[in-house]
Amino acid sequence: MEKRKSDIWFTEYQTPDMRLGLRITKVLVNIQTPYQHLVVADTEQYGRLMALDGAIQVTERDEFTYHEMLTHVALSAHPDPRKVLIVGGGDGGTAREAAKHTSVREVVLVDIDQEVINASREFFPTLCCGLDHPVVQVLTMDALEYIRGKSGEFDVVIVDSTDPVDFAEGLFREPFYRDVCRSLNDGGFLVAQTESPFSDPDILTGAVAEMKRVFPIVRTYWSSMPTYPTGMWTYALGSRKHDPEIIRSDIPAGTRYYSGAMHKAAFVLPAFVEELVRDR
Amino acid sequence: MEKRKSDIWFTEYQTPDMRLGLRITKVLVNIQTPYQHLVVADTEQYGRLMALDGAIQVTERDEFTYHEMLTHVALSAHPDPRKVLIVGGGDGGTAREAAKHTSVREVVLVDIDQEVINASREFFPTLCCGLDHPVVQVLTMDALEYIRGKSGEFDVVIVDSTDPVDFAEGLFREPFYRDVCRSLNDGGFLVAQTESPFSDPDILTGAVAEMKRVFPIVRTYWSSMPTYPTGMWTYALGSRKHDPEIIRSDIPAGTRYYSGAMHKAAFVLPAFVEELVRDR
Repeated sequence: MEKRKSDIWFTEYQTPDMRLGLRITKVLVNIQTPYQHLVVADTEQYGRLMALDGAIQVTERDEFTYHEMLTHVALSAHPDPRKVLIVGGGDGGTAREAAKHTSVREVVLVDIDQEVINASREFFPTLCCGLDHPVVQVLTMDALEYIRGKSGEFDVVIVDSTDPVDFAEGLFREPFYRDVCRSLNDGGFLVAQTESPFSDPDILTGAVAEMKRVFPIVRTYWSSMPTYPTGMWTYALGSRKHDPEIIRSDIPAGTRYYSGAMHKAAFVLPAFVEELVRDR
Repeated sequence: MEKRKSDIWFTEYQTPDMRLGLRITKVLVNIQTPYQHLVVADTEQYGRLMALDGAIQVTERDEFTYHEMLTHVALSAHPDPRKVLIVGGGDGGTAREAAKHTSVREVVLVDIDQEVINASREFFPTLCCGLDHPVVQVLTMDALEYIRGKSGEFDVVIVDSTDPVDFAEGLFREPFYRDVCRSLNDGGFLVAQTESPFSDPDILTGAVAEMKRVFPIVRTYWSSMPTYPTGMWTYALGSRKHDPEIIRSDIPAGTRYYSGAMHKAAFVLPAFVEELVRDR
């Protein structure tokens, strides 16, 4: 008989009617934290995977796409990004990318779940290097609380959140965006992941509409992201002053998805996405 | 007890280690044709679906992305596209898009499998309109045979094929590209789908390398495509004379993904894709 591989699968119900399955060789973590269900597993297709509440957050082989595109557009559009706040992002990937910008002096990462940070430190060496970088300070608390009362402090705030359910829901709403706007200095940017325009168009539309109530300039861009639903991912960018399409500072070396040309190309939206984010 | 939906799933093994599942409400066709296994089913997530040998070819809700991007880049880059050959594409989606260009006088569609054409006519009204358009002529035969001996006849040849296995394998090889090149007139373009750079990088690399042996100009571009593996899809474009990035004729109205801006943005490749297609 032919030799067969193990037939154990990690399955994400990306919607009630669509699921992605990945063959796994080993389950390393499978626990309930105080905030969410955490899985770390080794997959054949994408290397090591981290999932929260059943949703893939990171795989070793495609995380570069998301983390580069979430981070570098705002940071390269800023003329001199020095202080960065990351909301969520406990795996460290976004911090790793932010620290690549030579002007950055301080990155504050605020994640609610210490277990995510622990799992990254134990199982994701290529991500937790971001947590342990000398300019990065890691705080375990609710970012909604952390940001309340901050004023004119950050150059860029990056919302690297889970889907807008449960404790993350407030991260897609006007009151939070208002607090973020206050926490930014004059030329500051907010950037947030805003889901897939194919499977969750209402989240994109809603987040952009709420952001427009707060920021004078709001733009949407996108990237490929294989292990997220539909593989097409959007990002919304709120700006207090600068047009985020213009590159104003050095572009980091060694990226595998982001580039100066991609910075501009990512703002070219398919008409059906343009329709989702236009002024109403 | 809570009312539950049917739990019948169409599952595509996109690789041996990765599968996409779609909840279905009805299976309409499930037959072996002389060439491949054909399934037509209604899904909750993407509307009606057509699969060949287990691989999704078309769903009603996302086919526009692939068909627009496969067709309009070459046709808009051509100064006056009049005669178009479609290799494969029996569902009609590519023919529908080609016929949107007002200069196009004749579209010859050559698909090997009459059952695919029949299924489109019976079950996909928004696709088979392409087969029944007055400028479109449908031939049921092997395109490798059809194109042999043609000379200087076509402005654009579009390879809308299945994956390069079995009878479709030759469509990714130099001898076929040589026949296509001969069949094109002086300013002609060949465009072919070349799979995902994440899950099938060797197919992209191989097709581009073989194309470069025949065409003086070869360029790669990409689009999102949710129901194809990894959601990131590539297209290789061989040109006898013109730089395909330049738009030379009218852009069709009413597209939902393609636009003049997207034409150019699609040629901006992430560095890891650039690496796959660079000269060796």
